[in-house]
Amino acid sequence: MELFRKRIDLLREKLDELGIDSFLTIDPVNIGYICGFSGSPAVLVISKGLPSLLVPRRDEEQAGREVGGLVEVIAVEGSVLEEAYGFLKKKGVRSVGMEADKISHSEWRKGSWRMRGIRRVICKGVVEGMRMRKSPEEIDAIRGASRVSVEVFGAIPGFLSPDMSEMDLAAEIEYRMRRGYKARAAFDTIVAYGPNSAIPHAIPTDRVPGEGDSIKIDLGAKLHGYCSDMTRTIFWGRPSEEMKKVYGIVLEAQLSAIDAVRSGVKAKDVDLAARSIIERAGYGGMFVHPTGHGIGRAVHEGPSIWKKEDTVLETGMVITIEPGIYIPGLGGVRIEDTVLVRDDGAEVLTGDAGKDMLVLA
Amino acid sequence: MELFRKRIDLLREKLDELGIDSFLTIDPVNIGYICGFSGSPAVLVISKGLPSLLVPRRDEEQAGREVGGLVEVIAVEGSVLEEAYGFLKKKGVRSVGMEADKISHSEWRKGSWRMRGIRRVICKGVVEGMRMRKSPEEIDAIRGASRVSVEVFGAIPGFLSPDMSEMDLAAEIEYRMRRGYKARAAFDTIVAYGPNSAIPHAIPTDRVPGEGDSIKIDLGAKLHGYCSDMTRTIFWGRPSEEMKKVYGIVLEAQLSAIDAVRSGVKAKDVDLAARSIIERAGYGGMFVHPTGHGIGRAVHEGPSIWKKEDTVLETGMVITIEPGIYIPGLGGVRIEDTVLVRDDGAEVLTGDAGKDMLVLA
Repeated sequence: MELFRKRIDLLREKLDELGIDSFLTIDPVNIGYICGFSGSPAVLVISKGLPSLLVPRRDEEQAGREVGGLVEVIAVEGSVLEEAYGFLKKKGVRSVGMEADKISHSEWRKGSWRMRGIRRVICKGVVEGMRMRKSPEEIDAIRGASRVSVEVFGAIPGFLSPDMSEMDLAAEIEYRMRRGYKARAAFDTIVAYGPNSAIPHAIPTDRVPGEGDSIKIDLGAKLHGYCSDMTRTIFWGRPSEEMKKVYGIVLEAQLSAIDAVRSGVKAKDVDLAARSIIERAGYGGMFVHPTGHGIGRAVHEGPSIWKKEDTVLETGMVITIEPGIYIPGLGGVRIEDTVLVRDDGAEVLTGDAGKDMLVLA
Repeated sequence: MELFRKRIDLLREKLDELGIDSFLTIDPVNIGYICGFSGSPAVLVISKGLPSLLVPRRDEEQAGREVGGLVEVIAVEGSVLEEAYGFLKKKGVRSVGMEADKISHSEWRKGSWRMRGIRRVICKGVVEGMRMRKSPEEIDAIRGASRVSVEVFGAIPGFLSPDMSEMDLAAEIEYRMRRGYKARAAFDTIVAYGPNSAIPHAIPTDRVPGEGDSIKIDLGAKLHGYCSDMTRTIFWGRPSEEMKKVYGIVLEAQLSAIDAVRSGVKAKDVDLAARSIIERAGYGGMFVHPTGHGIGRAVHEGPSIWKKEDTVLETGMVITIEPGIYIPGLGGVRIEDTVLVRDDGAEVLTGDAGKDMLVLA
């Protein structure tokens, strides 16, 4: 509760700075961050006095359990957002900060007349900005989620068998997270064998491992509301010379980017540290995504580790470092860690999962 | 492919009727329905000639595999939607239908100047309207997903044990869907014991079953892109007299609503069929959600089975029927089936899972 109170106070300070007297969010991740409610849909309104959470009647009891005392729960019929418009009007607020990047154009238009007389201010990224730097409690939670990823990954060589399809392995990974650690998958686990691993976000299929296949496993756990994200590429039997070479390049790029991470460095320079190595090796056209992204309550959040991103890394940010090379028809290699930014460098939270080339079978 | 071509043709007819020459959607479910692409984010543009799918470079290969021949794939850097605005401008379209309920206000505003000169028409629910009536192929897919739900539910009495927490049972259910049927959970499985079952959308906890607990299990499978949704409430040892009574009322309400389903009936009359029984029994205030919802590619889609919904049911629609009574502190009972609307009545797709009160242990 104390943590939530602090966040509400900080948000109020930001509203004061912006010269607005209230704030409204429909984003479930932001709502969870500010007051701890885990349901959806809902609208959180910050104005004078106790914050208010508007939920469907269905979720009234759950909301009371989760935020009672901190926030007043208002159960509504129909659209929570439209009810919130009326609520702000009734409360007599004069201006409201709204996340125009989260609210649909239709819903925004409805607000135009339901909130006539209230000044609407586009507040994009205010809460997301707060979320970027993690508190010690949040870092502990991500550390816990990272440990689950590392341990579940570590068990794979012990149970992966020649008849285990990509779908089966993904199911096994998520089952172990839940039964063994009370964690959920932070996202749909990616398991891709051989040529399928050339698709960065492959959806697991029926394919079973073939001789020499790369096995790309991208897994993340969500524990106590926080996510981890990790990828390893291992091999089923001896890989081809080209895949061996590619593995070495991706690993060098990943280590180089981790080495570049510290407070005060621009996100784009971390991207460059990985990208330049892959480009120099002639595979630049096959590294088709950013080097990484922030991670926390959401598996993807700010900052993006991308060549156009000027955000300066700060101590307490948690990001992924995940360069990859994808060769259509042949296969792909991606190596990813969840990494904490510190004053003097990076702490790799998923570091206990080895990165030397691992050949099974 | 033939199915997708038909849908594209039908959508074009609708655009002609509306007097607009192109259409744009960012909704992954609508995109999957119209052309079969399963990734996200993406923008699908229908105008003259081949439809176009804009995807991040990362997803280019996957898109080519999934929609090649039917749709031209355009890989872009940066925001797919902003690139789509420029693309429409370059193509020289004069008007574009857009789903203002899916596009954020910020993104809509960006379109205001990037698409200057193009008339934007709010097209809400055009594709959703097409999706409501299912084709025979779609009904078969939902039938298959329903069978998975029924069979996995049927196995529960064989493995549920006194030390199995809500979380464990949810994990077990989803694991069996995946390993046994190559299906995914259509949504986070709800398992709630005893007082927790009074929360309609409870999140599974550490609780193990206690004597006399109601055990509410809301599970759905997604198979070949289509969902099923089913709830049963069973008991761990003898339930209290009140819970027995409540079970009987909910079951009567559910059967009565199913009985009311047929082509030509209004959705609200189906809701009324269930609601009036629960109200007459004095539990109206504890039936805190609609009687049901449409289901298909999305677990929740149109029509809503709700007291304010005037939509007329048509043959080929698939809906859920799921009344419930939730008594804070005591527990809740919900009974839900996935149901196909026919000319002469309802076909219950999850009907093989019995609804007589089941007492375990």
